[in-house]
Amino acid sequence: MTMVLISGLGLIGSSIARIMRESQTDVEIIGADPDDDAAAFLLSRQIINKHEPFSQAAPKADVIVLAGPVSVIIAQIETLAHLSLKSNLLVTDVGSTKVEVMQAAENLRRQGIGFLGGHPMAGSHLVGAQNGTTQLFSGSKYFLVTGSQTKQQLSEFQKLMKAGNVDWTMIDAQTHDKLVSELSHVPHVIAATLVNTVADSVGNDPVGLTAAAGGFKSTTRIAASDPKMWTAIMMSNSEEISSEIADFKRELTEFQQAISSRNEEKIIATFTKAQKIRKSLDE
Amino acid sequence: MTMVLISGLGLIGSSIARIMRESQTDVEIIGADPDDDAAAFLLSRQIINKHEPFSQAAPKADVIVLAGPVSVIIAQIETLAHLSLKSNLLVTDVGSTKVEVMQAAENLRRQGIGFLGGHPMAGSHLVGAQNGTTQLFSGSKYFLVTGSQTKQQLSEFQKLMKAGNVDWTMIDAQTHDKLVSELSHVPHVIAATLVNTVADSVGNDPVGLTAAAGGFKSTTRIAASDPKMWTAIMMSNSEEISSEIADFKRELTEFQQAISSRNEEKIIATFTKAQKIRKSLDE
Repeated sequence: MTMVLISGLGLIGSSIARIMRESQTDVEIIGADPDDDAAAFLLSRQIINKHEPFSQAAPKADVIVLAGPVSVIIAQIETLAHLSLKSNLLVTDVGSTKVEVMQAAENLRRQGIGFLGGHPMAGSHLVGAQNGTTQLFSGSKYFLVTGSQTKQQLSEFQKLMKAGNVDWTMIDAQTHDKLVSELSHVPHVIAATLVNTVADSVGNDPVGLTAAAGGFKSTTRIAASDPKMWTAIMMSNSEEISSEIADFKRELTEFQQAISSRNEEKIIATFTKAQKIRKSLDE
Repeated sequence: MTMVLISGLGLIGSSIARIMRESQTDVEIIGADPDDDAAAFLLSRQIINKHEPFSQAAPKADVIVLAGPVSVIIAQIETLAHLSLKSNLLVTDVGSTKVEVMQAAENLRRQGIGFLGGHPMAGSHLVGAQNGTTQLFSGSKYFLVTGSQTKQQLSEFQKLMKAGNVDWTMIDAQTHDKLVSELSHVPHVIAATLVNTVADSVGNDPVGLTAAAGGFKSTTRIAASDPKMWTAIMMSNSEEISSEIADFKRELTEFQQAISSRNEEKIIATFTKAQKIRKSLDE
């Protein structure tokens, strides 16, 4: 019997619980979350077996999955370093930034505890335990950053996650944080900024935002994401994100100049380049 | 029998042909498009009755729908001003900018021809006659800008478009161009810029863009749109677009400063504001 503790029973944590439940029969899952409703829902569906406070459940666990916001993950790694844990324990996380998390995990390495950094590149603008599914990460990259875990712990974790059909991808923490700042963090900043800019401007127009068509809605869909989770990510990866925003602004200013000077050749070249790249992502 | 000429048989023009075909039995539709394949497809499905050159078909028409890019619409209005047309003719367009189009249409007003500016706020990243549907604009705003059309011409056009289930919205040309620059034109600029910025940066990374998850894909979906059509829009509405980009950049810089200084309160307030507004669009 493998005893798994999942801390954070939102969209990601509850999806991992569903995946582990489907992957392996001899697994007992303890859920930890201050949100009693999420835990009650997952208990009622028999997705988790128990609901216990984090510090009470941790000493019993063979595998601990930290599935809260990055700030909570880091605080929980500190908490774990002061508890008496099983000697073969594997701790892993799902945080969207990895440099800070891997630094915090050095405390566990010193105590002989296995830590494996993780980050599933999926998710949704939906939130909460009710919206989790076994297929949330299916076909998407699940980044793994090597820490103090053993080879056996890594393969056991991957076995537990088998039903998720993820695309395991090894990466170092720095490369990861730069890549996701570009592919995920900065797009969230841009989507939120676009919504706020337009809302400020059309605020008094009776037609206003009600005229928004599919294009605006898809471009800003991720602006509906959980502000708390995304604030924690901004705090944890602020340097990379700020630097990528600077790159974006530079490119935007160049495009703006082409538009305001009505440089047709430059405008069509810019749109054509983007179209070619964007289309390739759907192939 | 109402004789309709639709010039431009892409996504929008072919959808209008389908809608008019379904709305009214006594309508004959002539399609004009240099793309023989699009016309052949619509002829084979009996969505249009004939395929003829624009200048040859125009003198026979009771209603002309200009459904090409804005630059083509303006050129065709000039062409019409030199043809011998039916005295009760209504000309309308689907262009994404209205100030330039309404100015060009003054030439028709002087000749006693009815012109009604139009712009359906829908569309898709899909293109072409094959992808048109009667429901492409369903539930979305279809902007109308009053020109030289008579009351009866307006109501006849709306009758022809009945099956499209659009939300007719009267607007003046200036207000329209500002609103769509915010809701549609600038989002296209931003989506294309985001794709190009990330592609330049991750170009040499083997993981790179393949790691893009749903968030990046939805934010940049409209970057796959037709570059020619969007270049024509930029050329036609360059001042409004450039000014809205400036507003966006100002707001982005403020957000960037909050992120780089790790101002948690400001970051969460910004994301929370955007979340609230964006969620309201789906209600």
